[in-house]
Amino acid sequence: MAVNLKIPDETKIFPVKGIEIGIAKAGIKEKNRRDLTIFRFSKNTNVAGIFTKNHFRAPPVKICEKHLASGKNISGLVINTGIANAGTGKEGLKKAIKTCNNLGKILNVPSNQILPFSTGIVLEPLPIERLLNGLPVAVNNLNKNNWLNAAHAIMTTDTLPKITSNKTYISGKEITFTGISKGSGMISPNMATMLSFIGTDVKISKNILQKLTIDIANKSFNRITVDGDTSTNDSFILIATGQSGINIESQDSENYIHIRDNLINIATDLAKKIVRDGEGATKFITIIVEKANSVRDALKIAYSIAKSPLVKTAFYSSDLNLGRVLVAIGFANVSNLNIHTINIWLNDIKVITNGNRDDFYQKDILQKIMMGSEINLRISLDMGNICEKIYTCDMSHDYISINSAYRS
Amino acid sequence: MAVNLKIPDETKIFPVKGIEIGIAKAGIKEKNRRDLTIFRFSKNTNVAGIFTKNHFRAPPVKICEKHLASGKNISGLVINTGIANAGTGKEGLKKAIKTCNNLGKILNVPSNQILPFSTGIVLEPLPIERLLNGLPVAVNNLNKNNWLNAAHAIMTTDTLPKITSNKTYISGKEITFTGISKGSGMISPNMATMLSFIGTDVKISKNILQKLTIDIANKSFNRITVDGDTSTNDSFILIATGQSGINIESQDSENYIHIRDNLINIATDLAKKIVRDGEGATKFITIIVEKANSVRDALKIAYSIAKSPLVKTAFYSSDLNLGRVLVAIGFANVSNLNIHTINIWLNDIKVITNGNRDDFYQKDILQKIMMGSEINLRISLDMGNICEKIYTCDMSHDYISINSAYRS
Repeated sequence: MAVNLKIPDETKIFPVKGIEIGIAKAGIKEKNRRDLTIFRFSKNTNVAGIFTKNHFRAPPVKICEKHLASGKNISGLVINTGIANAGTGKEGLKKAIKTCNNLGKILNVPSNQILPFSTGIVLEPLPIERLLNGLPVAVNNLNKNNWLNAAHAIMTTDTLPKITSNKTYISGKEITFTGISKGSGMISPNMATMLSFIGTDVKISKNILQKLTIDIANKSFNRITVDGDTSTNDSFILIATGQSGINIESQDSENYIHIRDNLINIATDLAKKIVRDGEGATKFITIIVEKANSVRDALKIAYSIAKSPLVKTAFYSSDLNLGRVLVAIGFANVSNLNIHTINIWLNDIKVITNGNRDDFYQKDILQKIMMGSEINLRISLDMGNICEKIYTCDMSHDYISINSAYRS
Repeated sequence: MAVNLKIPDETKIFPVKGIEIGIAKAGIKEKNRRDLTIFRFSKNTNVAGIFTKNHFRAPPVKICEKHLASGKNISGLVINTGIANAGTGKEGLKKAIKTCNNLGKILNVPSNQILPFSTGIVLEPLPIERLLNGLPVAVNNLNKNNWLNAAHAIMTTDTLPKITSNKTYISGKEITFTGISKGSGMISPNMATMLSFIGTDVKISKNILQKLTIDIANKSFNRITVDGDTSTNDSFILIATGQSGINIESQDSENYIHIRDNLINIATDLAKKIVRDGEGATKFITIIVEKANSVRDALKIAYSIAKSPLVKTAFYSSDLNLGRVLVAIGFANVSNLNIHTINIWLNDIKVITNGNRDDFYQKDILQKIMMGSEINLRISLDMGNICEKIYTCDMSHDYISINSAYRS
């Protein structure tokens, strides 16, 4: 059950000029569900991407990196759900290449202009024939209004599709941003979401686009965790078609800042949606660590709390057992941590003062906050000037049910 | 429900000459349960200890360290369960000191010859009056045959007491080793168990005893995890009364090796018992990482697997979803990891060869192994000569139930 996760009204989902999407039911893992998605881009579209830091990078991730590194324009994407094509060795690599070859032929572009993506079960062979048979069906379905259908078609254990869309204006010209993402388990930063694709009709030069992709990820997808596990297939792709007539060539322009902030908003919204639909989630928790010495220290503490099963189960049961938060801070392995200057608030109510229970500990109010579905936990270290914010969810019985039943 | 955890026959629990134990029902958290335990040692007993590395070390831990550092012989211990007296600041420190003062007076020894221990809820004030009122009752109960009662009295969320006992002979003289431990949740190395006390009637000089304590912990309590959380109150205490007439003065003697091996066996058995009684555990899992470059790398990989909720839930449901093991190895953050030389066995059946699914993957046999309650997972890296072994358990619905209900 997702936490306050809303699917926008179809009238609020804006197609992006220069992007068409096609869907098919290829029967990759289950019959009769949409599991194959392709994107086709207009000429001169620039694409950038960042990928999982997991040592076991899946074959499609390796092919994506190779095709992006070639410097060619990218003409399309192909995404299957059901099987991750990971831990599948040379055979898996051949299948990812074959997928690009086939789609390239149908779209009449070189195969290294196609990026392949897979998500689902690790270690199982990809049923390549079924996938290839689905490609022409997906191509026939190409349509600029398929974003929401694609958000559905890339889901695995997700209970709801994740989609965000926005419009803005520069010099009187309309610009559109629309993104989708999937992910619910095996979610932890270092490229956090399993798959996310954001498109805009702004033109952004390749150099800037790659830096921008990293910058956006570090403010959105790399600031979330559901269960602390980093997937082998994580990918975040940013697509800039240039069809709006607006052109970004320098990082110093006001227009760049405007576009970047819009993209960060879209990405953060998608990242939060992944957490809201975290496996078994019943609560959406924002953890803020402020006055830290470094980003590294702030994130160490934030993730130590966010990944602690004891903290997560306390939130699940609305149990005011906030000693568990102290414990998690204490084992975060931050050197020179001064516990005597730590202050903690739940929403805006003080819980811990100087490392100990606050003298005016307001048990009833705090208990009420714990029972809500949206909780802010703020930790102040009084060690420096750095502030970081991450998003996580609680851990419930359903987390166990989902993950013990996922495969069998 | 503990996994194959047996309480030894009372005739197999041997008292240790020079150690008496007394128990009381002090009503610290619940009425009418044994929650206060004291140890009294014969003269010239040497005691060593190691404690949690959590930054939030509880007041009793600080007092223990101070009293051990003073170099005085230790005459006794006092252990309460129910409230951890952690995150309790100056008041908590005063209470730990007062506890030592009172027991010192009753036993007629200086208060810095007493070590205090608390386990239970963090951040709640210790009801000191109830504890102090229980001390004379526990002293009246002092008896050399109280080891099993003590194992009961130090439990928190433990479902069963943990006790191990053994005898050996040196130069015709009988030597005894008996130990107890508690811990079920908030279990992760870096002094892993919440509390463990092992006694022997060998005489071991203080210098050797402290080094030996660290050595033993690194082969036992520091090689387990239930949920990845390190408690604020973890303590492991080794007591050597010298009443057997056997004296260890050098680390080079054969007798030292004999005694050390016996103590490692006792400690490893207690550590495994903690895992067997891990919160909600239904399976006991041994993870072996061999041919690693360093102890650090081997443990990084072992704990990355052992702490992954996705691996733990796959074991719980006997789901042969071993891709999750690869994923956890991949995000263990070991530099220079060569995934193409990784081999993995479940018990002795090959699962992964050179980083990919083994060509002769024996699904039916592997599925049967996954359904057992004792599972060995062996990972070979082919990078060096280091081998490390750790113990963990699965994660079940009961883990969530226990931890969402523990306090309220």
